[in-house]
Amino acid sequence: MKNQFIVIEGLEGAGKTTAINTVVETLKLAGINEMVFTREPGGTPLAEKLRELIKQGIEGDKVTDKAELLMLYAARVQLVDTVIKPALAAGKWVIGDRHDLSSQAYQGGGREIDRHLMASLRNLVLGDFKPSLTLYLDLPPELGLQRARSRGELDRIEKESLAFFERTRHRYLELAAADDTILTIDASQDIEQVQTDIRRTLLEWLGK
Amino acid sequence: MKNQFIVIEGLEGAGKTTAINTVVETLKLAGINEMVFTREPGGTPLAEKLRELIKQGIEGDKVTDKAELLMLYAARVQLVDTVIKPALAAGKWVIGDRHDLSSQAYQGGGREIDRHLMASLRNLVLGDFKPSLTLYLDLPPELGLQRARSRGELDRIEKESLAFFERTRHRYLELAAADDTILTIDASQDIEQVQTDIRRTLLEWLGK
Repeated sequence: MKNQFIVIEGLEGAGKTTAINTVVETLKLAGINEMVFTREPGGTPLAEKLRELIKQGIEGDKVTDKAELLMLYAARVQLVDTVIKPALAAGKWVIGDRHDLSSQAYQGGGREIDRHLMASLRNLVLGDFKPSLTLYLDLPPELGLQRARSRGELDRIEKESLAFFERTRHRYLELAAADDTILTIDASQDIEQVQTDIRRTLLEWLGK
Repeated sequence: MKNQFIVIEGLEGAGKTTAINTVVETLKLAGINEMVFTREPGGTPLAEKLRELIKQGIEGDKVTDKAELLMLYAARVQLVDTVIKPALAAGKWVIGDRHDLSSQAYQGGGREIDRHLMASLRNLVLGDFKPSLTLYLDLPPELGLQRARSRGELDRIEKESLAFFERTRHRYLELAAADDTILTIDASQDIEQVQTDIRRTLLEWLGK
């Protein structure tokens, strides 16, 4: 199989880190070793600076929804053009901790930014570039936030209301239902079962 | 006359600061005293952080044209939504040191970013918001750069090639010719004549 771009998505506390480890182990068992890891927002020096601004905000200046969205896309296009596309061109697999689907779900769903704006901006910035496979870890936001809180202090986005995360999850599910490159994993199960599901889903996909 | 948004535009070394002072004096003589000043990129704590990233770049990560453009629009929408629109709504005049026309000229003309992308992004982010009047200070880039260099160290954008600034100037002139809210001032003249032209142009415009 040709090298591909695989993304892990999901709400805070969905278990993305564990899922990425499972994906890596599964790919290695399948004989795939050349992997590049990215996280979004972030993954380049510039994009990490933008991540900091997005996640922490700035004293005395409430970040507007549109400014947040544009910073996310600035970080994303920098990562895609300077890291992801060159890695794919060099024959490497790319494993992403979040990608564009996060913006569609959080900014489009959570923040309720106009659908036309979301789709047009995505198109203008990324064109038809997208991951070959996205594993979306689905779980009720209450459960995810509980897990995230137990890990420590929450950032600006993690402090949003439960309704925000409900809207985000709703948009994730809606987009997953409409796109057969997005496969949903039930992340509310116990961790061994989640790992088993990821392994099986990924192996089936690799086998196609 | 109702309060308005007036912008001063032009290449490096065109004399924007002197022009702004002349605009302010002229407005004051016309009895206008409630003014808010902005500069772009910048003008809010978040936008100033973005200005720093845009102007200085970041070690080991060449900022892509699209990332630069998106950061500029993030800074711009933050400024428009949190400073410019509220000031206009409160009955104040807003005097801008650069605004969207700079992106059209520098990123659209200078960096040769696709016209469709430039127009669509502008539209998505700003809708039909635009200055009532833009004074574009036109001069040959050689002359402007000579003046800018004599002021000290050049930033990332000021270090571009002469051809970049020729393209930028060409786009400025093209856009000014197509939009009767953009008035061109010959900034290659001596400073007293430039100030006289600005005063006369502004008074004529105010009189309409």
